[in-house]
Amino acid sequence: MLFNCIEKMENTKSPAESQTIMNEIVLPNDTNTLHNLMGGKLLHWMDICAAISAQKYSGKTVVTVSVDSVSFKKSIRLGDVVTLEAKVTRAFNSSMEVHIIVHAADIPGGEVYKSNEAYYTFVAIDRSGSPLKVPQLIPETEEEIKKFDGALRRRQLRLILAGKMKPDEATELKALFFPEE
Amino acid sequence: MLFNCIEKMENTKSPAESQTIMNEIVLPNDTNTLHNLMGGKLLHWMDICAAISAQKYSGKTVVTVSVDSVSFKKSIRLGDVVTLEAKVTRAFNSSMEVHIIVHAADIPGGEVYKSNEAYYTFVAIDRSGSPLKVPQLIPETEEEIKKFDGALRRRQLRLILAGKMKPDEATELKALFFPEE
Amino acid sequence: MLFNCIEKMENTKSPAESQTIMNEIVLPNDTNTLHNLMGGKLLHWMDICAAISAQKYSGKTVVTVSVDSVSFKKSIRLGDVVTLEAKVTRAFNSSMEVHIIVHAADIPGGEVYKSNEAYYTFVAIDRSGSPLKVPQLIPETEEEIKKFDGALRRRQLRLILAGKMKPDEATELKALFFPEE
Amino acid sequence: MLFNCIEKMENTKSPAESQTIMNEIVLPNDTNTLHNLMGGKLLHWMDICAAISAQKYSGKTVVTVSVDSVSFKKSIRLGDVVTLEAKVTRAFNSSMEVHIIVHAADIPGGEVYKSNEAYYTFVAIDRSGSPLKVPQLIPETEEEIKKFDGALRRRQLRLILAGKMKPDEATELKALFFPEE
Amino acid sequence: MLFNCIEKMENTKSPAESQTIMNEIVLPNDTNTLHNLMGGKLLHWMDICAAISAQKYSGKTVVTVSVDSVSFKKSIRLGDVVTLEAKVTRAFNSSMEVHIIVHAADIPGGEVYKSNEAYYTFVAIDRSGSPLKVPQLIPETEEEIKKFDGALRRRQLRLILAGKMKPDEATELKALFFPEE
Amino acid sequence: MLFNCIEKMENTKSPAESQTIMNEIVLPNDTNTLHNLMGGKLLHWMDICAAISAQKYSGKTVVTVSVDSVSFKKSIRLGDVVTLEAKVTRAFNSSMEVHIIVHAADIPGGEVYKSNEAYYTFVAIDRSGSPLKVPQLIPETEEEIKKFDGALRRRQLRLILAGKMKPDEATELKALFFPEE
Repeated sequence: MLFNCIEKMENTKSPAESQTIMNEIVLPNDTNTLHNLMGGKLLHWMDICAAISAQKYSGKTVVTVSVDSVSFKKSIRLGDVVTLEAKVTRAFNSSMEVHIIVHAADIPGGEVYKSNEAYYTFVAIDRSGSPLKVPQLIPETEEEIKKFDGALRRRQLRLILAGKMKPDEATELKALFFPEE
Repeated sequence: MLFNCIEKMENTKSPAESQTIMNEIVLPNDTNTLHNLMGGKLLHWMDICAAISAQKYSGKTVVTVSVDSVSFKKSIRLGDVVTLEAKVTRAFNSSMEVHIIVHAADIPGGEVYKSNEAYYTFVAIDRSGSPLKVPQLIPETEEEIKKFDGALRRRQLRLILAGKMKPDEATELKALFFPEE
Repeated sequence: MLFNCIEKMENTKSPAESQTIMNEIVLPNDTNTLHNLMGGKLLHWMDICAAISAQKYSGKTVVTVSVDSVSFKKSIRLGDVVTLEAKVTRAFNSSMEVHIIVHAADIPGGEVYKSNEAYYTFVAIDRSGSPLKVPQLIPETEEEIKKFDGALRRRQLRLILAGKMKPDEATELKALFFPEE
Repeated sequence: MLFNCIEKMENTKSPAESQTIMNEIVLPNDTNTLHNLMGGKLLHWMDICAAISAQKYSGKTVVTVSVDSVSFKKSIRLGDVVTLEAKVTRAFNSSMEVHIIVHAADIPGGEVYKSNEAYYTFVAIDRSGSPLKVPQLIPETEEEIKKFDGALRRRQLRLILAGKMKPDEATELKALFFPEE
Repeated sequence: MLFNCIEKMENTKSPAESQTIMNEIVLPNDTNTLHNLMGGKLLHWMDICAAISAQKYSGKTVVTVSVDSVSFKKSIRLGDVVTLEAKVTRAFNSSMEVHIIVHAADIPGGEVYKSNEAYYTFVAIDRSGSPLKVPQLIPETEEEIKKFDGALRRRQLRLILAGKMKPDEATELKALFFPEE
Repeated sequence: MLFNCIEKMENTKSPAESQTIMNEIVLPNDTNTLHNLMGGKLLHWMDICAAISAQKYSGKTVVTVSVDSVSFKKSIRLGDVVTLEAKVTRAFNSSMEVHIIVHAADIPGGEVYKSNEAYYTFVAIDRSGSPLKVPQLIPETEEEIKKFDGALRRRQLRLILAGKMKPDEATELKALFFPEE
């Protein structure tokens, strides 16, 4: 009994242990002809930052399995500093959902603003590509608990969008979209 | 009357006019330590291919406003040829939804397979960043009509996920999730 | 007899089966201080596009053995979309001649123009670097037949320029340069 | 009197306000033929990380004026995660000394180690390249006070090495190297 | 009279004044799946090296107008050092022919070999793109004189291949191909 | 006796045998928002140029072990040609000190100037990472002899800065700082 309990504690991690920060300067080749950061380049940086977070969390090699929908509200300009911050929000056997939030700063202009955020999902694998078990996540702050709870709904949405779950079965998601029913 | 009709025809385009093909070879820097293409790099290529498609369609400079959820089912290997094909599926005033489908080929190994697909959304803008009207899309093939029809549902999902629409108002999406009602 | 004939047909391919399209956006690092695409960068893209075409044609790994003279008539500008289209024009045992044609488009400016064209030659090899036989090419359109016929002359010019053939022996080339003799 | 005091407080900053973290994955092109990170690439990353730190500290555009001697003790391997952490240690009118410490992690191998550290110096400038005043630094932790005090000695060493100060005048440095005298 | 003579001397340069050397290490992203340098990448480096040579010679901004046929005889391997050496061979009003010779070295393996060579042609231009006069070239060594003389023939071949000269008029070239006539 | 003497001669090299020249054009991605070359990028180029020099000198694979302090006096502009020249100044068992001098040229503007210089140290290693003996350096010109002599002092400074030598033992360095003693 006691042994099980200890083992369980050893197999858990907090979101803080996965926290990963990246800073990048927007260089000319990252921009379009209007000197704004290209969306695809930002998606690439977000993937790298989230992958490092999942790697730190699991202590394993990881591969991206999906990215949830991302929107780009505000243009990030050439020369701006982009700060990405990633944290694991929930673990499922061998997969981990990672939340990334992006801020941009025009430092000489004295402006800092939230650019966007996204959820990436990774799977831990061994060298032959087989999935490996990862520690369970124990959320600590209120924000982390909220994201942990929402992970189930986001997962159902992913499964439906990938054609792997029928909408009828997505009880969590139903509650999100149509709470009144 | 006649004049209006001609004008309307001039302001329309077919998906075929936006078709854009890109071929890329997976180089070492595009891969992780297992020699598989990194997800973020593929998202970057998809963004560029879709942006050229939207540019050709609108004849304008475009910026990415969102990407719908993307999943990565099969690893693409170092040295493989990645073929991306993008086509506009529907236009809304100044925005265009673009569908991208990705195939990968291990040519010496004689293997070609579908890797994944996604929907990116772009807005046409002028040099000051103000949105510009784009031609209306007239789908032609059965496949194009199906994607054109689905665009409304995907748009509602985007608006709900971005917190800009209440689930109640998402009548199209409701039909997707609860077809029996 | 019949069997030979079928086998021969299996060992042939049409130019269309090798067609390869690439689209690239001219980014800042691809340009000189006048914001024009550097010639060497375009030669690099042409090599990649032609190599994919030869790879698709032969189903093998290929290496560049030569590029014929290329001229750059019109500057391609920063932000323009460069479209490369490659097709095998003729096969000789283990080598393939590939024709690449390049168009550039200033899309917001509404301008599309032919930039230049070139012939690259590739050899199919195995992992130890030994040459491998490739399918014979059967040209189909009038244009393809014209390029197929010209391939002999271009090959003789290459051999003379590389010091591997005496001008006397270049009967095909003689006909090209000095048709009246 | 009071006003001066407040103004002075407004013109100061703590090292914590300049803290900048960068994470990079070592990719193939960053390595030599033994698959170790090239020293020059690490110097480049350190420069970017330190520059962002100095930019955040000063709220201005900055340019690198010098880097103190750096040694590379342990090879960093392909695929390792490199974590850089930069903090301003002292400000002199328009220049800032920034300390960068680098750790590397072979995550699947479970190894994390300190790689190296360095001091970079930056100057804040306006768009015409003229130097701009930066806030004074008030060190807070014991470690920060130690680095703040050492900054004078390091500065004297830089001036001597650049031929701008005679060894006789380097009283701080003398104390460092030859404390007994 | 005397003045004219001096002016003329001022408007001449020797090939040595244009000599440009570049060294590059073959990195993973420069290679194909067999770890050999891609032909297109080498063409890109040759273009940059030749362009610097033409820039030094003319003291002006230059653009590539053509590259003569190039053949790739021997594979250059990952990690090899590539040494490019460029020199102007002849000047015509605003254009310059540049010869580039490429050597590769597997230094730990103790092997150095000539890889290939080529002729690039550049035009000196002002900021509006109009051609500018360049100094006349006075060849000095025997080798330089030979290349200077051959430049006329190569130029005629380029003009014929570009469809700008009729073979009949190519008297220099005729002598090259059919010396006995 | 004679044999030893010949062997010794075979194990020596002159600085000239290690001379390595690199030319680079400053491209947009190498610059900050003021269009000046970033210091870190220049440190990277200097490392590559110095590494090739040490490789040529030793005939072995080399790794960077340190770089002495470098100062950046004058901004190098976008489009300028950067010329790096490296030569080994002294060899110690398996390590080599390499001096690099950097010049920059704004060619259309007719300006050439010395940018900066530095000393990098490399160690020759075998494939397992073990150090290998390198030839002894025999300086030839007055300048080379001066740099050869100074190498001892610079080495002592490196050892003190790395905490591997006590200032008391640094007799050579003492002479540099306190020549009057």
